[in-house]
Amino acid sequence: MQDVLNVGIAGLGTVGASVVRLIAKGDNRLAQASGRRIRVSAVSARTKGTDRGIDLSAMRWVDDPIKLATDPGIDVFVELMGGAEGTAKQAVEAALDAGKAVVTANKALLAAHGVALAKKAEAKGVALNFEAAVAGGIPVIKTLRESLLGNEIERIYGILNGTCNYILTRMADEGLSFEECLADAQRLGYAEADPTFDVDGFDTAHKLSLLTSLAFGTLVDTKGISIEGIRSIKPVDLKMADELGYRVKLLGVAQRTADGVEQRVHPTFVPKDAAIAQVNGVLNAVAIDADAVDLTLVGPGAGGNATASAVIADIADIARGHRTAPFIRPVAQLTKPTRAPLTRHEGGYYIRLEVVDKPGTAARIASRTAQNNISLESIVQRRAGPTRGGTDPSAAAAPAPVVLITYATTEAAVSRALKAMDSDGVLIGRPQVIRIERN
Amino acid sequence: MQDVLNVGIAGLGTVGASVVRLIAKGDNRLAQASGRRIRVSAVSARTKGTDRGIDLSAMRWVDDPIKLATDPGIDVFVELMGGAEGTAKQAVEAALDAGKAVVTANKALLAAHGVALAKKAEAKGVALNFEAAVAGGIPVIKTLRESLLGNEIERIYGILNGTCNYILTRMADEGLSFEECLADAQRLGYAEADPTFDVDGFDTAHKLSLLTSLAFGTLVDTKGISIEGIRSIKPVDLKMADELGYRVKLLGVAQRTADGVEQRVHPTFVPKDAAIAQVNGVLNAVAIDADAVDLTLVGPGAGGNATASAVIADIADIARGHRTAPFIRPVAQLTKPTRAPLTRHEGGYYIRLEVVDKPGTAARIASRTAQNNISLESIVQRRAGPTRGGTDPSAAAAPAPVVLITYATTEAAVSRALKAMDSDGVLIGRPQVIRIERN
Repeated sequence: MQDVLNVGIAGLGTVGASVVRLIAKGDNRLAQASGRRIRVSAVSARTKGTDRGIDLSAMRWVDDPIKLATDPGIDVFVELMGGAEGTAKQAVEAALDAGKAVVTANKALLAAHGVALAKKAEAKGVALNFEAAVAGGIPVIKTLRESLLGNEIERIYGILNGTCNYILTRMADEGLSFEECLADAQRLGYAEADPTFDVDGFDTAHKLSLLTSLAFGTLVDTKGISIEGIRSIKPVDLKMADELGYRVKLLGVAQRTADGVEQRVHPTFVPKDAAIAQVNGVLNAVAIDADAVDLTLVGPGAGGNATASAVIADIADIARGHRTAPFIRPVAQLTKPTRAPLTRHEGGYYIRLEVVDKPGTAARIASRTAQNNISLESIVQRRAGPTRGGTDPSAAAAPAPVVLITYATTEAAVSRALKAMDSDGVLIGRPQVIRIERN
Repeated sequence: MQDVLNVGIAGLGTVGASVVRLIAKGDNRLAQASGRRIRVSAVSARTKGTDRGIDLSAMRWVDDPIKLATDPGIDVFVELMGGAEGTAKQAVEAALDAGKAVVTANKALLAAHGVALAKKAEAKGVALNFEAAVAGGIPVIKTLRESLLGNEIERIYGILNGTCNYILTRMADEGLSFEECLADAQRLGYAEADPTFDVDGFDTAHKLSLLTSLAFGTLVDTKGISIEGIRSIKPVDLKMADELGYRVKLLGVAQRTADGVEQRVHPTFVPKDAAIAQVNGVLNAVAIDADAVDLTLVGPGAGGNATASAVIADIADIARGHRTAPFIRPVAQLTKPTRAPLTRHEGGYYIRLEVVDKPGTAARIASRTAQNNISLESIVQRRAGPTRGGTDPSAAAAPAPVVLITYATTEAAVSRALKAMDSDGVLIGRPQVIRIERN
């Protein structure tokens, strides 16, 4: 057996503590599998005294994580502090410059600086592993880096944020409002006091940007992502989805099109029979469509143990001496993605309109969709009334909604049709437009 | 860039031809990712002239696959001939003895001789990769070998045979009989003329034996698997499953219990809300329950391209110089599994009884279950009549079925209760007993 692999961990929150505990628990199994004993030999965190329920007595305490990153006693630096800038970035850079392998769960750092860090790792010939940064315990990074090399990937999409999926699942199952479910998620610790990062789609976008690069061999392009969150989703949308055979999920989607790479984060109608439609609560899922295989991977997207499982797999790869380029190819071979404009997005749409209750309204709607070559799969019109089993206070007073499900059309056509209906004076308020993603 | 990796392929059926085509198509991508150009430089198959839709002009033809296995011009021997004994075995042994890395999709060979072959690979320090042998294009072997090393696995189960899943899906969706669906599967090329290997569960058992070993660190123990196929499943069972909130799947299940390792292949009731319940048609799925994460992987279990995708990933690992022990740990560290007796299996059961139509029958059934400490979640009794939308010719004439869904109990308790009912004279024919697997 080779020498011990010495690991230094910066950040001892839930994930860091789980990494320490699971490495101790799996000591023999890890040594048998990787041919080396893996030892957490030094740690760093903001406060030393906290009871984390783990035994740190055999580990050196290093106050400064940047010092830990270059500590001669460690072979691998594990960054679990978080944050796109500041200490986390400096520590990872210092570790790579010192020729240490790095493992990180920090999607914000990678979305902002992943390519620059990969270049440093490449220059030193060390690993920069980040399985835990996307979809927590789901091994999607390894699947893209190693298992799908025989494939040309056409589309990758997923439920990448457990907070949003929890909220949407509860809204769908219990007819509750966004606000009620968010409050519950906050009470249960699934959402932050400031939920913006999760519910407005930024967290999903960070993760998507990494998947896109891995799937298509492009430079990470977080700014090229069109982002919509879930705040605008009403109980009536979930109710209509259910009736029409769909579930609503916040998806990150990256897709090759004739116009370039489309990257988008938005609430999405997915057909109920898609594997991803059944992924509920805080679970995550990633679906990959490629020329040789289509895969769906489902599992926990967050949580101490699940994230630690991914971190440990990354460490074990280093123990085995396995190294793949962070973004599969050498950085010099990553291409600049052409951004496909969202106006040219093709797909089906769910459109919910609040319309004025006067003769000719239906005819107007029909003619405006027809004029824009939009074919309708379904039209549903309902008398106004409270949502069944729901508690949406606005539902009772709402004007009659008209719901359209379109066949594949373009975003531009939908915008034109809605603009025309608006100038016809048949609409009240803003239409709700939700893209449909087919499996 | 390092030297070219020279690959020799024995067997040019659908999978072999796809491997040749996809390696040619992905040439640059594979070279970028693995740092070496991968070239199929020699092939072997039973007949030379066949038009396989691929260009073999740049490859040497070697008539004897065993000669190809030791050919000095190849670095990796890819075995796609199939069969547990004979040429496939001899060729793989010869390749390993000659110090060649081996990639194979041959589950029968591995189930029978995997450990002995792993020992040879270990002695020579070469790879023996078999991602394609289980669940086709789903990267479950790599997930177990590499991504879940931080986990202790408690249970692994899956839909591992597309033929059976196709038949069960059609039976459920269209109310057809087993025989009708089998005939269709044969017409469509999803089932062999002699379907025994698939529908009686042996193919699933071969694959399960490999998953068990990987999950629990045990020697491959195909003989320790309890195997039931799907021939006995009637449309009424699928109809009842649907009404009671389940789908019926042929599962391979391996589970740690207090009594040892349980390995079983049988038709199974799975709750509709389990990810695996939505896996229909020829798709496969594997679910893994571990202490840190629970994962479900869904994808194509067979087909030329999907299987080739797995074969190419295995080759790319070799190109990168990544090698893991075939069964994760060195062979000397694999333990002999204690076989948990199926009589001690604990779980819920679906029991369909055909009962005599006379007073006191219901009371007898209730008292016999109570005597054996079996608690019932549901009891359904129906008047006899044809299956709704079904074409099962036996349904119209069938006596009134009674269906029981039990809470968790033991296999032994169920057997005792049924034996008692039988000696009470209330049963007609053999009860249908199907285990329930909870997610």
